[in-house]
Amino acid sequence: MTDQSNSPRASRSGGRAARRAARAAPLADHLRPVRAGLEGGLYRPLSDAGVARIHEAALDALEQIGLADAPPSGVAYLKAAGCIEGDDGRIRFPRALVEDTIAKANRSVTLFSRDGKNDLELSGTRVHYGTAGAAVHVVDVHGRTYRDSTVQDLHDAARITDQLDNVHFLQRPMVCRDILDNMEMDLNTVYASCSGTLKHIGTSFTEPSHVPPALEMLHMIAGGEDKWRERPFMSNSNCFVVPPMKFATESCEVMELCIKGGMPVLLLSAGMAGATAPSTIAGAIVQAVAECLAGLVYVNAVKPGAPAIFGTWPFGLDLRTGAMSIGSGEQALLTAGCAQMHHFYDLPGGAAAGASDSKLPDMQAGWEQMCSNVMAGLSGCNMVYEAAGMHASLLGFCLESLILSDDMLGQALRCVRGIEVSEDTVAIDQIAEVCLSGTGHYLGTDATLSRMQQDFVYPTFGDRTSPKEWAELDKPDLIEKAIARKEQILSQASQAQFDPVLDQALRERFNIHLPR
Amino acid sequence: MTDQSNSPRASRSGGRAARRAARAAPLADHLRPVRAGLEGGLYRPLSDAGVARIHEAALDALEQIGLADAPPSGVAYLKAAGCIEGDDGRIRFPRALVEDTIAKANRSVTLFSRDGKNDLELSGTRVHYGTAGAAVHVVDVHGRTYRDSTVQDLHDAARITDQLDNVHFLQRPMVCRDILDNMEMDLNTVYASCSGTLKHIGTSFTEPSHVPPALEMLHMIAGGEDKWRERPFMSNSNCFVVPPMKFATESCEVMELCIKGGMPVLLLSAGMAGATAPSTIAGAIVQAVAECLAGLVYVNAVKPGAPAIFGTWPFGLDLRTGAMSIGSGEQALLTAGCAQMHHFYDLPGGAAAGASDSKLPDMQAGWEQMCSNVMAGLSGCNMVYEAAGMHASLLGFCLESLILSDDMLGQALRCVRGIEVSEDTVAIDQIAEVCLSGTGHYLGTDATLSRMQQDFVYPTFGDRTSPKEWAELDKPDLIEKAIARKEQILSQASQAQFDPVLDQALRERFNIHLPR
Repeated sequence: MTDQSNSPRASRSGGRAARRAARAAPLADHLRPVRAGLEGGLYRPLSDAGVARIHEAALDALEQIGLADAPPSGVAYLKAAGCIEGDDGRIRFPRALVEDTIAKANRSVTLFSRDGKNDLELSGTRVHYGTAGAAVHVVDVHGRTYRDSTVQDLHDAARITDQLDNVHFLQRPMVCRDILDNMEMDLNTVYASCSGTLKHIGTSFTEPSHVPPALEMLHMIAGGEDKWRERPFMSNSNCFVVPPMKFATESCEVMELCIKGGMPVLLLSAGMAGATAPSTIAGAIVQAVAECLAGLVYVNAVKPGAPAIFGTWPFGLDLRTGAMSIGSGEQALLTAGCAQMHHFYDLPGGAAAGASDSKLPDMQAGWEQMCSNVMAGLSGCNMVYEAAGMHASLLGFCLESLILSDDMLGQALRCVRGIEVSEDTVAIDQIAEVCLSGTGHYLGTDATLSRMQQDFVYPTFGDRTSPKEWAELDKPDLIEKAIARKEQILSQASQAQFDPVLDQALRERFNIHLPR
Repeated sequence: MTDQSNSPRASRSGGRAARRAARAAPLADHLRPVRAGLEGGLYRPLSDAGVARIHEAALDALEQIGLADAPPSGVAYLKAAGCIEGDDGRIRFPRALVEDTIAKANRSVTLFSRDGKNDLELSGTRVHYGTAGAAVHVVDVHGRTYRDSTVQDLHDAARITDQLDNVHFLQRPMVCRDILDNMEMDLNTVYASCSGTLKHIGTSFTEPSHVPPALEMLHMIAGGEDKWRERPFMSNSNCFVVPPMKFATESCEVMELCIKGGMPVLLLSAGMAGATAPSTIAGAIVQAVAECLAGLVYVNAVKPGAPAIFGTWPFGLDLRTGAMSIGSGEQALLTAGCAQMHHFYDLPGGAAAGASDSKLPDMQAGWEQMCSNVMAGLSGCNMVYEAAGMHASLLGFCLESLILSDDMLGQALRCVRGIEVSEDTVAIDQIAEVCLSGTGHYLGTDATLSRMQQDFVYPTFGDRTSPKEWAELDKPDLIEKAIARKEQILSQASQAQFDPVLDQALRERFNIHLPR
């Protein structure tokens, strides 16, 4: 590149006002350049032979090693389905049973929103991004401090998520540490999430006894059990295994109750590569796939075809310290490799990406979050969990970072959308016109103007000004812009707020911690 | 994920000192987890049909539209090769000529380093990252200001690049605005770069008359013309076209001289999608491919098999303002799509990625730089230009950002390296051992320890501490760490410094602006 003084930046600024005006009106939904459910899958980190080898190893692990610690109810379900209980108490899975289960399992899951505007159709390589996790801190970006997360923080995260185009669901990203009773915490998590967003919500119940009252609350919010079962707008994240290869007894019992209650389940296997899973990427994927296949057999033994998400979530580790590390390239590969296994099985799946090890929304956070987010999207991961706002290797959630992720995920989604090649887009007639008889310039042609909204993602917070314009604007700071947007969102009423009669009924039945 | 209080972070910190010690010694080169030339290509943004359609359209453009403004020497070369000069002065390229040229062109290029330690072998899907550009500003991160870039800044960038494992080459990232005479600027660019790094260097001569004295300088540095021609350690970036579809007359004359002087050339087509190239990603790639194929015919007409890099560098534009925008998802797709075309032709190629629109090394810069850098790597781009330190849509270069890019590019390279699937890595024996007869834990196993250095990239500046450790360390700031490293590098003597006799000779022959 030579000096840019002759670039269009300088010579073309005359048409700027017109172009700004053309962009002023908000786009109709079908014209938006990106949306939930775009199809990825063009990045395939594994060869076909690699996929087959991982699948074979997972079948071997299930047949030869099996899983320990199933609850009595689970042992009964699994044995009835054809599993074998060994003298060592481990449940082993014959290959034919696993293959039959894969063949008959649900190939798509719909995660409903409350208003029908943001239903997520999980199948094939359709990509959705959202929050998740169980952070115990919230990040105060001004004070550069970490404080305990509260039910109000969770509610605020829900309200912000509700307003972000490119964050497609809210899975509970942090725990309400101001609520000491576990049952109350779980119930208030449901209340604070549902009163903050109409998008699909994920939660995670800690004990089986919490499920019936939570379902009661959900029935009230839905307007009756039948309405809830018709469009369940909340799913449950089941850490149903304690890797390596052990069932998490209580979580399995929670899972059984959720399935019976009509709630989609996320079969979440969260091994840590090098600690609770092999340190190799391939080995960690093998174990996660084996564990999730065990979960799939379990779910289908409880209720054939029950909606389940294949949740291979292997996490990275910094082997120097033994501490979790989630922002690495190794993590991005773990997640992308898992997504490819989901496609091999043709099962709706999800994995974790987009979290950072950095404590603050700084440059490290930006590169770490984008790396795994864009690779998860390109690999066609149905549900990209932890995609927004997550810091400190999952220990801290940051509302300003959540807001900025709308830009980041919009960009990642643009990459997922990919390159359209057609007679129109290769533009040979346009090139001929511009070069042979025209202006020598494409700016302002009909072909260019007609595509400037549908083809391009424009950032809301990302700055594209020249250094001169930037100085004239007093050098706007990215984080300050996010803080301002956060305050604006939180100053407005939530569209998900319950009507007063329902709210009164909920508060009479449950101990709701959020103030009215 | 449930609460992490039982995570290995808490329970396993006892082994930390031992693991830190194991990692203390620097790794032998062949044991490093990432290196220059790793093979990418698993991300293929275009279908085979899309590639073929783009190729056909490029051939159509060359045959039917052709290129204007070739210099007289170029017209002579091209007509002798079989091109047709039209009545409109445009040179058109018969399909058979283009196809024959592709068939016989050089399939690999070696870009030499001065000391032989960092030679870059460009072929197939081997990936290399480096700087590039012509920024007119340098970023002062402390003062949040942009100032004119100088020859000292360029020299400092070279010295820093020399020390960064994951920045594989130095292409001149900024222009020496303190040198007003163009010839002196070009010659001092050579001096300041070569005295700062032994890695391969790219430059860009502005006028044909600058090439002979520059070659004279390079011969002196190499120790004679024969030594220079044996291992040319500098290549020239030729903006040989002014898109759309016009030759850049003077740059073509520069190119002819470089080819004759034994210097590898980068055939750089830098159209701006929506301004000097079609706004569609496919159309911008078609035009860039057509222009570079024209350049390839030109190079091979001057000297068959001369080393040339297929430099499709389409850039993005913000159509709302007409300003360049380089940090977008659209840009990442432009670059990845181009890399796939390079592989279709089996030609050594390069494109731009990793630059940011942000003015500072903030979170926006992080996500923008990683997005296109990792996608360029996964697509197997041989030369990823602008990969480090570039801000403000190519107008500003930042030394601290360059330093931090070593972490970012290390991570991107880890992603390029990908997932190894073998009997060893699927780890089924290890899983059986740990689950059935062992500790239930992989941390500390031989298999894990033996791989902790070769398989994992550890960041130098990126922070992986827990919030508690981070607070105890007084909350280290990413940018401050980069500043400290910059000052450390610049306080040490450059290993590329010329010996005093050579330096004296160079200073007697040329007006060198850098102080001794």
